[in-house]
Amino acid sequence: MTHAILRRWDAGFPALLAQLHDPPKRLYVRGDAAGVLERPAVAVVGARSCSAYGAQVARTLSRDLASAGIVVVSGLARGVDAEAHRGALDAGGTTVAVLGCGIDRDYPARHAELARRIVGGGGLVVSEYEPGVEPAPWRFPARNRIIAGLALAAVVVEARERSGALITADFALELGREVFAVPGEITAALSVGTNRLIRQGAAPLLGTEDVLAALGLEAAPATRAVVTDAAARVLALLADAPRGQDEVVRSTGLAASAVAAALVELELAGLAAEAEGVHRATRLPERAA
Amino acid sequence: MTHAILRRWDAGFPALLAQLHDPPKRLYVRGDAAGVLERPAVAVVGARSCSAYGAQVARTLSRDLASAGIVVVSGLARGVDAEAHRGALDAGGTTVAVLGCGIDRDYPARHAELARRIVGGGGLVVSEYEPGVEPAPWRFPARNRIIAGLALAAVVVEARERSGALITADFALELGREVFAVPGEITAALSVGTNRLIRQGAAPLLGTEDVLAALGLEAAPATRAVVTDAAARVLALLADAPRGQDEVVRSTGLAASAVAAALVELELAGLAAEAEGVHRATRLPERAA
Repeated sequence: MTHAILRRWDAGFPALLAQLHDPPKRLYVRGDAAGVLERPAVAVVGARSCSAYGAQVARTLSRDLASAGIVVVSGLARGVDAEAHRGALDAGGTTVAVLGCGIDRDYPARHAELARRIVGGGGLVVSEYEPGVEPAPWRFPARNRIIAGLALAAVVVEARERSGALITADFALELGREVFAVPGEITAALSVGTNRLIRQGAAPLLGTEDVLAALGLEAAPATRAVVTDAAARVLALLADAPRGQDEVVRSTGLAASAVAAALVELELAGLAAEAEGVHRATRLPERAA
Repeated sequence: MTHAILRRWDAGFPALLAQLHDPPKRLYVRGDAAGVLERPAVAVVGARSCSAYGAQVARTLSRDLASAGIVVVSGLARGVDAEAHRGALDAGGTTVAVLGCGIDRDYPARHAELARRIVGGGGLVVSEYEPGVEPAPWRFPARNRIIAGLALAAVVVEARERSGALITADFALELGREVFAVPGEITAALSVGTNRLIRQGAAPLLGTEDVLAALGLEAAPATRAVVTDAAARVLALLADAPRGQDEVVRSTGLAASAVAAALVELELAGLAAEAEGVHRATRLPERAA
């Protein structure tokens, strides 16, 4: 596994990162750094054991951000981080993973292939730690400062009351970067951290355009998927609120087989997804004029 | 159906309501108004076609507010309004329903029994419209100003992009009253109005204590329900995020029958509820110190 080293005083060392009060002396980099770290970037972070809602929002948001030309920065952890990287890759976009261990380590091991896809897609895996450094819990907050430092804005998708993602948000706030949190149900523990962040003054993220507007960018025009009438009826129901398949059958009055077909159609069109027995609309709402 | 009339210049006319720039000249009242309209009151309003999440939050919040001695004010509509009234009644509390039609009308008809329970429980049904006035769409915004006017704070539980509940919030803001909105999933149309209200500066409501704190009141100490080990495992899972029953079986590794029993136990203890095929924890989180 080859890597480059970007030193603090090198021309290519990202200016935003240098604004940290304790910027890393050097960044170890897998992938071709030329240009990537100068592009506008947004951090998308959150819970490892995220819910289906958090996973879907992380993926859709990151896909939309990458489609708008933004580099998605995250931490290669499972849950929200991995979905953020995958969303950017879905869009053929660029994403940067910041490790909390040596640049030569595939950590977590289950994301070795994801790391290769990130680099293969023109993105980067970066770390301030030299080859051989083991992952350790106390390195993750330090890693989070780099995630915050590389990005113009940070989005916390889902976070428990005490979550490492909130540390990333704190670093971003200290740097004067925009911090967004995704609202969630108040009865869900995985949204307690994000809802509290909003109570403390973070901007609630309602759609991708909120982030783009904060960066002075415009959204790519939305493409409207054309679906069958049955699928449109099911989607309208799911767009109100998530529900189980039986309930979709009851509420629409459609045959169970028609509902099953509609749900598959919506899933293939990227308009809805199922997880934990619950079907959800996945498109983020567009910002009101 | 008997009613009393409370005139603008009567001693018992609520002082808060008189602060409206166009207070009603008189209030027609079913029930014994003595004292009720002087007690601290909170408006709990929201979508008619609310989701299971909205219904549960409206009910739990109103139950907790009523337990703390607060009068719950709403509009007797279906959905959030009815759940708010029911939650207050669950707690043996006092609730006030404001009609958008003549005081003698049971509107909506399906809530005639609820209106009787409200009055029977020491609460009130009130209207600025004399007997015989028909419900009409244009009377509901006027009704909403009275809901806002009677309350020290307004809580919007769930609202679409354009929702009458947002009009109540506007009146409350104009009056300088505290406005809370309950955050919800950004992919749910029923939470677009509430999440936007938060983006516009409304306080996100994370738990009942947020409202109590704003009014300078303290919460009644929470009672901890004792449940079986299996129920506790299921509750821990639901407290993370809502899910379907099959998923609870898969995630806990418990037998389907044990999960079914645990879900019934949790529902009877008021700790979880099922709707639309999705099981949710219903307790609102406690405010962090």
